[in-house]
Parts: sequence; structure tokens; C-alpha cells
Amino acid sequence: MIQRIDAGPRMSEASIHNGVVYLAGQIPESPDAGIEVQTAEVLAAIDDLLAQVGSDKTKILRAQIYLADIADFDGMNRAWDAWVVAGSAPSRATVEAKLANPAWKVEIVVTAVV
Amino acid sequence: MIQRIDAGPRMSEASIHNGVVYLAGQIPESPDAGIEVQTAEVLAAIDDLLAQVGSDKTKILRAQIYLADIADFDGMNRAWDAWVVAGSAPSRATVEAKLANPAWKVEIVVTAVV
Amino acid sequence: MIQRIDAGPRMSEASIHNGVVYLAGQIPESPDAGIEVQTAEVLAAIDDLLAQVGSDKTKILRAQIYLADIADFDGMNRAWDAWVVAGSAPSRATVEAKLANPAWKVEIVVTAVV
Repeated sequence: MIQRIDAGPRMSEASIHNGVVYLAGQIPESPDAGIEVQTAEVLAAIDDLLAQVGSDKTKILRAQIYLADIADFDGMNRAWDAWVVAGSAPSRATVEAKLANPAWKVEIVVTAVV
Repeated sequence: MIQRIDAGPRMSEASIHNGVVYLAGQIPESPDAGIEVQTAEVLAAIDDLLAQVGSDKTKILRAQIYLADIADFDGMNRAWDAWVVAGSAPSRATVEAKLANPAWKVEIVVTAVV
Repeated sequence: MIQRIDAGPRMSEASIHNGVVYLAGQIPESPDAGIEVQTAEVLAAIDDLLAQVGSDKTKILRAQIYLADIADFDGMNRAWDAWVVAGSAPSRATVEAKLANPAWKVEIVVTAVV
């Protein structure tokens, strides 16, 4: 009834139910990178997970974006705008919140249609 | 399969799938207003979007409230309590988070039935 | 069409629609307790609400965890890891955010299948 992707002992990277996939918060790979590179890495991780479940970025219902420093809003948006598909852009909200690793500048939580 | 409302190049104000609408984070109109007025503006924006998709405030499943200053909790609740319909109030969570514009005191993310 | 649990004048503790339950943010009972006890209390509150709607912790789609101090990440995880069922762990995201009561160290928002 619920399909889990990368089901670990603590969390799953994705949980699918009734045609909707709930991703875990995706985080960047490169701790020393700037906001644009980190955002692009997070978006690539989202692309990868969505591809695993037969979805893609045009089917995202909502993206909740957390920035460790809201001053990175414009830099995040540069990477976002280069990635998102106009006309199929999701509902979105962006707020500042410290993340579990102080090297992470951005974390994004996505809900999408599969 | 997904219906978008106000689909811009960066985000949509609402995304509908399978009878559920996912709104973008709604923000206030008046940067200089206090928390009660700003909250009422955000709730009016939610009313407007829900009306556009044939829903209303009695059909909200969840409201995630972000306050730039958690000290505004009581003021936000005064506007909220005057707006919400007792018996049909949604599941809710409120936390403090800085918002993209420092003039915004409150942002609310709503998921509702259409 | 929407079933509400503990529907108060301000919010409901749970809202159910189309086989999915959206819980309100669950908070701890013991203001003076440490992060592990407070997290266990929050998880017990989630267990109780899920049981009321015929669900349980193996059916959680997503958990959004808010920590008042991200330094409590490891302590929260000790309680979480003792509670979660490996293989059925939900998608998860954890960020720092001040909560409505300064005595609360953790708040968790859960979406689950009923």
C-alpha cells in the first residue's frame, strides 16, 4: 500500500501512496560549494528520485524550500529558475531555517505526482 | 493530470491533483501593517485562491504557519480565530522562520480538498 | 468528506481525506524534560492519534521535524531510532525553528495513510 524508496533504518528517501510521492528533504553533496551549486545539487537529487519512481520535475505539486540563510534567496532562485519548467512550476514556499549540517545552505522537500 | 493556478515561470499559486489543492505559501500585502492585519491579508489571499478552485476555508486539511517572530503568535491567533470556522478547523502547526521579505511577518502554506 | 479528530475552535488534531490523515504538529508534555524524553512524548502523541484513526507508525508517509535547537539533532534521533520501524520508516526532513512555547524542544508534523 506504501512503496518505499531507499528504505533505511531511520527514514526512506521517498514514500509513494495513491499516485503521490512524498520525498525526504534533499540536501547538497558539496559542503564547500556556494548556494547556486548546492541548489543545483539538491535539484539533481530530486530529479534522480523522481526518475526512480517514474515521475519528473513537471509533476511536482509542492516544493518547501529551507535556506540556512535567507540572504541566499536570490542565489537559490538562479539555480531554481534554470531548472524549473515554466508553466509546470510547482506551488512553492521558502523560509529560513538552520539545517542539520551547518555546511548545508539549502534543503528542499518535494511532493509530486507519480 | 495536474491543474495549475497562476502558473508563472518560477512557481504556481496552486496545484491540484486528485481532489487536493496544494497552495503556495501566501504572504501579506501591506509591509508596514501589524501582525493582525498581515495575517488577515494572508487568510484573505487563501480564501481567494480556494474560491478559484471551488474550495473554501472549511475544507482545509492542513495549515503550516511561519511567523518571522514567534512573539507574534497571539496576534496571529486573533486574526486566525476570527477567520476559522469552529468544527471545520484544519490541522495546524506554527513555527518561527525568517521569510523572504523582512517586511513579511507571516506566511501560511495550505493544503485543502477541492 | 473530511473527518476531523479533536476538532476545536482553532484547529483539529487530525484531518482525514481520501485515505490520508494530516496530523497537527505534535508537541511534548513535559516542559522540563530533555530532548530524548520530549521526542518520545511527541512520538507517543503521534502513536495515539494514528491509533484513533486506525493507522500506525508503519504507515507514515512523511514526518517534518522542527527542533528549537538543531544541536538536539542527535538526541532527537536516539528517541526516533528506538521508535521507528526499520523498512517502514517515513520520508523525513529536520530543520531548526523556534516553537510557540519556548519550553518545547521538538515538534513533529506527520502525514500518514489510514
